[in-house]
Formats: sequence, structure tokens, C-alpha cells
Amino acid sequence: MVHAPARPPVGAPPVRINLYSDTQTRPTAAMRDAMMAAEVGDEQFGDDPTVTALCDRMAGLMGKEAAIFLPSGTMCNVIAIVTHCRPGDEVLAHETAHILSSEGGVHAALAGTQIHPLQGARGMFSAETLRAAIRPRTRHAPPQSLLEVEQTANIGGGAVWPQAELDAVVAVAREEGWATHMDGARLMNAVVATGIPAKEMVAGFDSVWLDFTKGLGAPLGAVLAGSSEFIDTAWRWKQRLGGAMRQAGICAAGCLYALDHHIDRLAEDHANAKALARGLRQIPGIAVEEPDTNLVFFDPAGTGLASAELVKALRLQGVQISMLGGRIRACLHLDVTAAMVEETLGLIRAEVAKA
Amino acid sequence: MVHAPARPPVGAPPVRINLYSDTQTRPTAAMRDAMMAAEVGDEQFGDDPTVTALCDRMAGLMGKEAAIFLPSGTMCNVIAIVTHCRPGDEVLAHETAHILSSEGGVHAALAGTQIHPLQGARGMFSAETLRAAIRPRTRHAPPQSLLEVEQTANIGGGAVWPQAELDAVVAVAREEGWATHMDGARLMNAVVATGIPAKEMVAGFDSVWLDFTKGLGAPLGAVLAGSSEFIDTAWRWKQRLGGAMRQAGICAAGCLYALDHHIDRLAEDHANAKALARGLRQIPGIAVEEPDTNLVFFDPAGTGLASAELVKALRLQGVQISMLGGRIRACLHLDVTAAMVEETLGLIRAEVAKA
Amino acid sequence: MVHAPARPPVGAPPVRINLYSDTQTRPTAAMRDAMMAAEVGDEQFGDDPTVTALCDRMAGLMGKEAAIFLPSGTMCNVIAIVTHCRPGDEVLAHETAHILSSEGGVHAALAGTQIHPLQGARGMFSAETLRAAIRPRTRHAPPQSLLEVEQTANIGGGAVWPQAELDAVVAVAREEGWATHMDGARLMNAVVATGIPAKEMVAGFDSVWLDFTKGLGAPLGAVLAGSSEFIDTAWRWKQRLGGAMRQAGICAAGCLYALDHHIDRLAEDHANAKALARGLRQIPGIAVEEPDTNLVFFDPAGTGLASAELVKALRLQGVQISMLGGRIRACLHLDVTAAMVEETLGLIRAEVAKA
Amino acid sequence: MVHAPARPPVGAPPVRINLYSDTQTRPTAAMRDAMMAAEVGDEQFGDDPTVTALCDRMAGLMGKEAAIFLPSGTMCNVIAIVTHCRPGDEVLAHETAHILSSEGGVHAALAGTQIHPLQGARGMFSAETLRAAIRPRTRHAPPQSLLEVEQTANIGGGAVWPQAELDAVVAVAREEGWATHMDGARLMNAVVATGIPAKEMVAGFDSVWLDFTKGLGAPLGAVLAGSSEFIDTAWRWKQRLGGAMRQAGICAAGCLYALDHHIDRLAEDHANAKALARGLRQIPGIAVEEPDTNLVFFDPAGTGLASAELVKALRLQGVQISMLGGRIRACLHLDVTAAMVEETLGLIRAEVAKA
Repeated sequence: MVHAPARPPVGAPPVRINLYSDTQTRPTAAMRDAMMAAEVGDEQFGDDPTVTALCDRMAGLMGKEAAIFLPSGTMCNVIAIVTHCRPGDEVLAHETAHILSSEGGVHAALAGTQIHPLQGARGMFSAETLRAAIRPRTRHAPPQSLLEVEQTANIGGGAVWPQAELDAVVAVAREEGWATHMDGARLMNAVVATGIPAKEMVAGFDSVWLDFTKGLGAPLGAVLAGSSEFIDTAWRWKQRLGGAMRQAGICAAGCLYALDHHIDRLAEDHANAKALARGLRQIPGIAVEEPDTNLVFFDPAGTGLASAELVKALRLQGVQISMLGGRIRACLHLDVTAAMVEETLGLIRAEVAKA
Repeated sequence: MVHAPARPPVGAPPVRINLYSDTQTRPTAAMRDAMMAAEVGDEQFGDDPTVTALCDRMAGLMGKEAAIFLPSGTMCNVIAIVTHCRPGDEVLAHETAHILSSEGGVHAALAGTQIHPLQGARGMFSAETLRAAIRPRTRHAPPQSLLEVEQTANIGGGAVWPQAELDAVVAVAREEGWATHMDGARLMNAVVATGIPAKEMVAGFDSVWLDFTKGLGAPLGAVLAGSSEFIDTAWRWKQRLGGAMRQAGICAAGCLYALDHHIDRLAEDHANAKALARGLRQIPGIAVEEPDTNLVFFDPAGTGLASAELVKALRLQGVQISMLGGRIRACLHLDVTAAMVEETLGLIRAEVAKA
Repeated sequence: MVHAPARPPVGAPPVRINLYSDTQTRPTAAMRDAMMAAEVGDEQFGDDPTVTALCDRMAGLMGKEAAIFLPSGTMCNVIAIVTHCRPGDEVLAHETAHILSSEGGVHAALAGTQIHPLQGARGMFSAETLRAAIRPRTRHAPPQSLLEVEQTANIGGGAVWPQAELDAVVAVAREEGWATHMDGARLMNAVVATGIPAKEMVAGFDSVWLDFTKGLGAPLGAVLAGSSEFIDTAWRWKQRLGGAMRQAGICAAGCLYALDHHIDRLAEDHANAKALARGLRQIPGIAVEEPDTNLVFFDPAGTGLASAELVKALRLQGVQISMLGGRIRACLHLDVTAAMVEETLGLIRAEVAKA
Repeated sequence: MVHAPARPPVGAPPVRINLYSDTQTRPTAAMRDAMMAAEVGDEQFGDDPTVTALCDRMAGLMGKEAAIFLPSGTMCNVIAIVTHCRPGDEVLAHETAHILSSEGGVHAALAGTQIHPLQGARGMFSAETLRAAIRPRTRHAPPQSLLEVEQTANIGGGAVWPQAELDAVVAVAREEGWATHMDGARLMNAVVATGIPAKEMVAGFDSVWLDFTKGLGAPLGAVLAGSSEFIDTAWRWKQRLGGAMRQAGICAAGCLYALDHHIDRLAEDHANAKALARGLRQIPGIAVEEPDTNLVFFDPAGTGLASAELVKALRLQGVQISMLGGRIRACLHLDVTAAMVEETLGLIRAEVAKA
């Protein structure tokens, strides 16, 4: 979870370079045009052709039977959990999972589930760790029924699960008879970074979703994919939670546009992330984690500058960036150019020099 | 609840006149222009100026401290219930209420509440009926904590609660210490039909919402208003349920446009409804309920034609209309003109003549 | 639901004749002896032989595969509902059902269910009424999944469902694919009154329970029966809700004693009820419902004495009796003898004569 | 959580020495006599004098305003959580807490809560660890509302929280505005071990409960204490969950007997535990944790004998003992004498000698 940006310090100019989050991308003019031209209908009765097209497209991309359009990724997660689990069940997920920290405990409030937090570097865990968390099948212990994985792992630094690791944890789930769910908010970053097709990457998962508001740049929307039976039940929950809209094709059109135009370009964000990391590493005293995708975590403590001080100093020069724990997180996305990365590096070097 | 339109009979032409539901209005070109020009930001951090403007506008219109933008009216209802009530509480509502029949039981699944269904003509109930439903305050009975009213009452035929009746049931709630919630999906129809300002009409309610996808013609969105404290908690539930979007201003702009351009014109829908009712009443054998607003319920049984037969015959001629129970419901809205009403009457007269 | 007995009026003697409720029976000396001699173990591990014997006995009596011992009938109901249903489901039951009025809304709070209240005389409803309550299988409507019946119907006056009526409503449930649950708190009264063996009477029900604290006279305990799979899941909920005890055989022994000694004698309670009804009917101005079992509802309004006045007058003479709605309910049980019935009738006649 | 005892190996004699769990104590003849003689009434209406006496006694002992009798400790925990918290809230507890591992996830299924598992030696955590787990008060994070502590810490080896540590974590809770709840299943062991009066030990807790089925030796029952307002709400949940019984005084009498006769004697269990630990420590290759109270955890791995082998060998000689993780847990209680401890040590020495 990322906190709201701090109130800008007194005297701060408007934000010129926004490294805060890829959720803050603005729809481009071309995306807006696509949305404006969308053919629409009542999606609750399957009558919105643009929503239908988006769901068909996503099902194909993910190699699943069906898909459902939802207003947000959080709704994808909670609907997946309430569809896979029964009250009193336990879900296994990393201790830094979004469903634990950033969704207001809704997995418990709605689905009645408990999450078993697993440990491991960079938001990932091994099959061995997973196996050690298996509970005895007694009347006392909560029944375990779902494995959840984040690809890429957000708090893990945008880390990409190696395919062999994914396969290994899925194999444990299969042995145990658990369902499997992937929070694929930034899945396409992993796909672009590895070159593995999405449908191969998610083949072991009963459900998976993609967020269109992050690197893909749409203003709202996420799509959850799975078996036809799973999506039928998910539709009931979409109605229940109030995620069923009417002429939603206007929004779906933005997502379709993103699938056509904003996936390959994620490679630019990754290149910018690597350039930023490289530049930061050259500044003595800054500890940098090598980025897998579009997130760069670093800690300037060794320079004598605290993270909070550096964040504030940058903001006073129009650069917005976030803190997570004690570290700084820079997020690269379609509103950030290579030149902006260079400019940011220059500003950081200057601040460190002053420290 | 209105079922999905039946699959069109073989040989049916495209729908030319859509009396099926005001939820099926398409955004006008001008509304689309307003949406596409919207200034946007990240609504989760209060940074979307268009969402903020819509909420401020709605709070003012309803005479409440604050408001929150949500993807649908169903989400408004469930968030209101879970905010006002605790698990095991009982809500008092009409037996035809949308929350009982058409929201998948989410008030129970999420808020853990039980609804006490009240009887009364046209979707309304008297203070006396409400008082008779008060439970003893024992350890065994579910605690009653919320009164819910639909204005206008949908299954009640679009009926408008007389202000004195509203005031009377609110007075009972106040005596009992219950919160009060109005499902105002079609509230503006009641406002236009009576001339009573919205803020006066809803003064007795702790929370109230307006649906922008019905007569107001927006593609998606509803706004829930209440005290600042109520809206603070509602925001938590918006996040939890996945109703928090990002650059939602694109959608909010459609709602703002509707407030500016689609309210006064509801009077035309009401006039069309009255014209339709008048025309139907002149056809021997058709029983018609006098419409308060934009919904006309009628039963052709006396003509020898069953409702289902008439619905099918109309559909074969490009007119879509719905059944509810055994009756037919015609819904007037901005995509239906006075000429279309006349044409529909002509078609019905012809069908009845053939029967 | 029966309210707590009103605080005794000033000057009231101790209760000498308790017609208030069969829940207030005291364990007899012989039952206490049986309890104190019980062989016990840890019931959570299946090690309590007395609990095991009781469950085996009940499973046999009900013709089900298995049974589970629970602290109360309310826990039987909520465990049955949460085992049969999923959150957002709808249960069909009579509008006077105990699960609606007297269990604090726990079916909603725990199981997330909504109850559809059905109407019908004496706490029963017809197959036709049930069929009329079937909802369309849309995404909007709550899925219906459970039929619940009370045998005997408490608020219905201790009425016994005729077997043909039971079979008819069960047939509807089977057509619809619903599970069936019987609240058999006073089932043995129906069995004794009709002579139909319990296992025949409940053959159409997936789950059924018996309360041992009512006419059967045990201090606590109820047993829920069903298929082995159902009881396996019920055991999980018994653990979850804290209904799993340790050396519970002490309590189970009271229930076993009741099965051996307190069933046939229910016929005495029924005879006493009929005698009371007969005697009351001879008093001009008292309206009496003919009792099927051990509950007698009557209304003295025609004598000029209000129910509340008569209840108070009786209490001042050591007779405790309850009110339900405007009527008086007399409950016959093992602590009430035929002589006490005669004495009560004499006191009522005297009060009416004074009125 | 302790698993069910393994099915006895072929040829195993009856259990002669039961070190398995203090939950398996059998009621003594004198306790049974007390139960048999109990004066009873309907506890749901406050009419059971023995239940009332037990609750008054417990409220006094704990220094709280009121108390409530429940069938088990699990029900105490879940009622406390659902009373203190709202759906979506987070509870802070040790990662080995009973509410996480052994109550079937009911805190989530009923109360809709998420538990934040804290780390620390022997089932305890420091104020610093607790402080590090405080979440930002954003719309995304689950609101934290309850601190839960186990005294003694079961999986922690029956460890006693030092009073200063308890006070320190309570102080953090107070700063944060959280409620505080103590799972005092074995609280009296801590009281006897430290000499600190119960009411002082629990002064910082809003709710606390005592299990009467563990070292106190009653067959069933636990009592939860707190403010009058808390207990009023707890009573609603007791009714809802089906924990409300009828003539429960029979069981409460066993608990009252335990308060009179089985508290001071816990010191014997502690002495036996220390004797067992001392004896084990003298056997080369056995690693033993020093017991604070009545639980002794040890690991025989260093002797060449695996835990499972030793457990089985002992069972074949009539000694039942449990495994938890890889360790062996011996539980001392009123059915285990000093002589039995010596005998057990002798058997273990013999087994190790053979290894």
C-alpha cells in the first residue's frame, strides 16, 4: 500500500515529474477518443458490445474460458476470494500481499476468511515455506483452500516470480486441493519483462486479473478471468457488491485501447527503471535494489540524507515520489520519460552533494 | 427487479422503441463530450476535481454535509446498510424493496442484517404498519436499527411517497432511535413530480442516494450523501468493496452533465407516462394504474391477450417492454418521445383488436 | 419467542403452577442421578462414551447417518443454515419462525442469509404458497437454497404439520434443488400426537434436531442429525462457535434419560392441554384454539378481562403463564399435573366471575 | 492447538498416566456431588441462582462489573472479538495465538476480522514489536481495534507474561485507542505461579475469561468478564450463537466447586512440572524448556530417539502425551501425581537407554 501523497510543502510548485504511482497516469488523448467513440449497451444484460469484446479479449489473453469487467482490482480480489472460499477458510499469501495490507480487511469482512502470511524475500515465497504452512486437517484448524500470489510483487519491489517458482507453489496447492488465484495487477509488466506469454505464465491459476489503471493507463477498470463456472458466480458477486454498471463500454473502451497500445511500451518503463537504478547506484551512500520491472526502491540513508528529507526536497522542485517503510519507491510509467529520469537523477545528486 | 429482456423472438427486428427500462438510456453526444473533456486525477486521494465537484454538488442538492461517488446504486445501498447497522441488526423496509429482491442478499452477506418486510399499497407503508413491526428489546430478538424507504417506489409503480407519510415513518424511526436511509434511485422523478425541493424531501434521512443511470441518462455512477462522519466510514467501505476507482472524473462528468441538463426534462417523461396511461385506459379490457412518475403498469388480461403475448407481439414490431409479476411495466425516459408513445398505443390497439 | 416473565407483581407468592414454558422444567431427581453417574471423556476427540451413545441413539431415531450434540437448539439452527447455505442465499420459512424472531438475526450475522417469510395459518404454509415464493434464477435475485419448517409450529399454537403437507412442501424443495431443514424443537410432541414414527415424519429432511430442554425435561442440550458429510461440516461449526465442550457426557446423560423416560409421557401433557382447552371453552367469553399438542392459546377478551389483567391476577395466586401478541399461551409439561390444570381453571373461572 | 491423540498403537494398554492435556481431567466425585445438588432455574431469564452466583463470583475475582457463563473458551473469544470489533477491523495477537490456529477461523467468519500475527519468544511479544505493527490510519488499511493476549501462553510453553510486559503492551493499546482482551484459559496458573491477584493482573484488560475445563477440572464451561455494557452485548451474542442454555446451574456448580477447591492446588501441578523438567534435563540428549507453570516442552532428538518414537513407546506402556510441532508437550494437572511423574521419568530413561 502506498499512502496518499503528503500534503505538498509550503512553496512547492505543481508536480512536473510524477514518480509517485502508475495509478496516477492520465488517459491520453487517443485513449479518450477511443472511449468517446465506444459502442455501448446495458452490461448487466450482456448487451454492451465493448464490455463483451474486452472480456473475450482478456479470456483469450489469459487462456481462460471467461472474464468479467469490474471497477477495480480490489473488487477482483475480493470476488475471487469469496467465490473460491467459504467462511472460516484460510488463504495462503505473502505477508506483504495487497489483500492483507491495503483492502481494508474485506476478505474477512465479506468472505469470512483468514490469511496465513508467508515470509520470503521480495514478496515471494518458496514451495518449502508454503509446505511448512500446511495445517493439520482437524476440526480445530481453519480449512486451507486458496493460494494467492502477486505477480509482480508490489511491496517486493515489482519483483517477477520466476516461472519455476510459480509452478512449484502451484504444485503444492494442487497436492493440497487448494484453488489458486493470481493478483495480476501488474502482470503485464512481468510478461513484458520475461517474454513469457501471459497464458503460459498464469496456466496454473484458477483465476487471475489485470489492472488497467496502472501501467496500462486507463482511468478505471480491471478484468478477472477464470472458468465459465467461476465467472458465473463472480457475476453474482459483481451484482451484489454493486460492481455491475450500465453503459460501461465507455470505460471498457479505454481498457481495449490499452491492450492495443500500452503493453509493448511497458518495456520503456522497465528501461527507465534500470536507468534510474544505475544512476542512483553511482551516487555514493544510496542503496538500490535492482529492479525487475517498473518499480525502483532505494534508501539514501548512507548519504546522510533521510528518505523523508529527500522526498521533500524533490517535491519542492516539482518531483513527486513516495515512501514505503523507510525506503523511497520510484514508479516508472507512461507519463515519465527518459529525460525526466535524467533530470531526477541530477536533482538527487545535487541534494546529496548539499547533505 | 426487472428480469433481463427475454431473448428476442425469431424474426424480431432491432429495438426501435425501448420502454424496457430507464437504465438502458444511452449517453447523448453532448454528455459524451462533457465526459471526454473532464479534468481528472486520482480520486482515491481526493485529487480528481470532477469527482470532487460532483460530490460537493450532490451534498448541496441533498442538504447533507458530504457525499461519495460510487459505481452503482446497489453499492450505495449496501454501504449505507453496513455503515448504519451491525451484524444481527434488523432493517425495516417494504416487502417489494430493491434491497430484498434485487441485490443478491448482499445486505445479509456483507452487513449481516435481516430485513423485516412491511406491507402496504404501491410500495409504501404507513406509520401504523411500521409501529406494529417494532420488536421487543429482548436478548432474543434482532435489534432494529434502520428504516429504509424507496422514493419513488419502483415495484410500487413509480409511486411518490407523500411528504406527510415520509415524515410520519421518519418520526417513528426517531422515536425508536433508528437510522434512516432513502434509496433515491429515482428521487429526482419525485422531486420533479411534486415540486418539493430534494433537500426538503430528504431532510429526515440520514443517508440518501441518487442513481445517475436511470432517467438522468449517465452510463454509470450513483452518489450517496450523508453526514461527514457517515461519508468517512462509507469511504472505507468504498475501498473495501472495490468501488474506489482512479481517474473517475470521466464518469463523474457525465453525472454533472445530467444534473445540469436532464432533471427538468423528467417532466416530459411524466407527461408521456400520463399520455400512455390515458391511451391505454381507453382500450377496453386493459387495467391501468395511474402513474405518479415515469413508470406505467398495466394488465391486458381483460382483452383476452395475456401480458406475455402482448410483450412478444410488440417486440416483433421493434418495441421492447418488460413484465413484472403478471403485469406489464412501461418505462418512460429520454430515449422515448411522445410520438413513440402514440405509435406504441397504436400497436397495442391493433393487437387487442386482433385478439 | 416468549418474553421473559414479567417481574412478579408486588405481593406475588412464589410460583406454584408454572404454565409459562416447557423450557422451565427442572431436571427430576432420577435424571440428576443419571447425569451424575455418567461415564465421560473428551467429546472433542470422540472420547465421551455417553455423548457418543446419545448421538448414535438420535441418528437411529431420526433415520439419519449421524448426529451431533450441541448446547442448544439455536445452535442447531444456525449450524444447519451455515452448513446448507452460502452467503447471499435465501431461506424459505414461515413468517413466525423462531429463526426470524428469536435468534437475534444470527442466520444473517453468521451465515449471511436472507429469510423469505411465508404466510399461512397456525405457523404452516402450503406448497402453493411456497411455489409462489420461488424467485427467478437471475444474477440479481438471492439464490434460494433451503426450506425450513418448524414441527410443531410454536407461534402456530403447537400445531402439527399434517404429513401430507410436509411431503408437499418437501416435494417443492426437491424440484427446486433446495436443502430441507426441520426445527424439531418439539418434534416428539408431534410424534406422540400422531403416532407417526419420527424417522418417517422427518424422512424428507436433510437435517433435523430435537430440543431436550423443552417437554423432554433436560437442563440443556439439543441434538442435530443428518448425513455423515453434513455432520462432519457441522462439527467444524460446533468447534468454531464454541459449542464443543469437554466431559459433556454429564449433560448427554440427562438427554438419554429423557429419551428413555420422558417421551411417552408427553401424551399426558397433550391430555392436560385438551382438558385445559375444554375447561376454558366452557367459560363464556374465552376464545380458545383447539390444541394439537402441549400449547394452549386463548383470549379472554370476551369476558371483559384483558389478557394482561388475567395473567397478573393468576400470578398473584402463584400461577405463571405467558402472553404472546395479545393472546395468552399456556404450556403443559412434566411439572404440571392434571390437578394443577383443574386448579388453574377454577382460578380463571373465579377471576372471570369477578370481571 | 493440540491434535487429537493418535489412535493407540496395536497392543497398547489403557491410558494409566494422562499427560496429554489438562482438558481431559475428569470431574471428581466431590465435584459431581456439588453439581448434583445445584439449585437451578432458567438462565436465559436470569433465574438460575447457581449461574448467577458463578458470574458474580467471577466478576469479583476479575475486578470487572459483570460476567457471563458460556459453554466454552472458544465462545468467550469469539464473543469478545465480535463485541469489541466491527467487520474489517484488525486484531493484534501473537502468531501462535489459539484464535489463529485452533478456532476454525471463526473470528473472520463471524466477526469479519483479520488478525495481525506478532512474533516473539514463548508466545509473548514486546511493546516495541506491537508498536512496529501499527498501521497508518488510511482508507486502505484495516482499522486496528483490539489487542489480544494469552495468559499463560499455551504454545509458548505455558509461559507467564511478566506484569511489566503486560502493562507495556496495554499502554500501547491505550495510546492507540484499541480495546484489550485476555484469553485467560489458564490465567489461574499464572496467578498461582506469580502470587499476583487476578484482578491486578487483568486490570488493563477490557475483557478476560477463565476456562474451567483445564486445570480447574470442570467438565464444561468458561466465564467471560468485562464492563456491564460489554456483558449486555455479549449476552446478545450468547443467544445468537446458541450458548444460552436453560438449567445451566448444574454445570455452573462444577465451576464454583473448582473455584473453591482447585485453584490453590495448581501449585502442585507447577511443582510436578518443575520436577519433570529437572528429571528430563538430567537425561543426556533431551532439550527441556524451563516451565513457568504446568506445561513442559522437551525435545529428545539429541538422544537418537525421535519425538514420535518416544511418544509411541510411552503409549505402549500406558502413558499418553502429545506432540506439538516437533516437540513433546507434557501437561500436568489434577489427575497426575508426583509418583506418576517419577514413573514417567523412569520409563523415558529406559527408552533412551535402549536407543
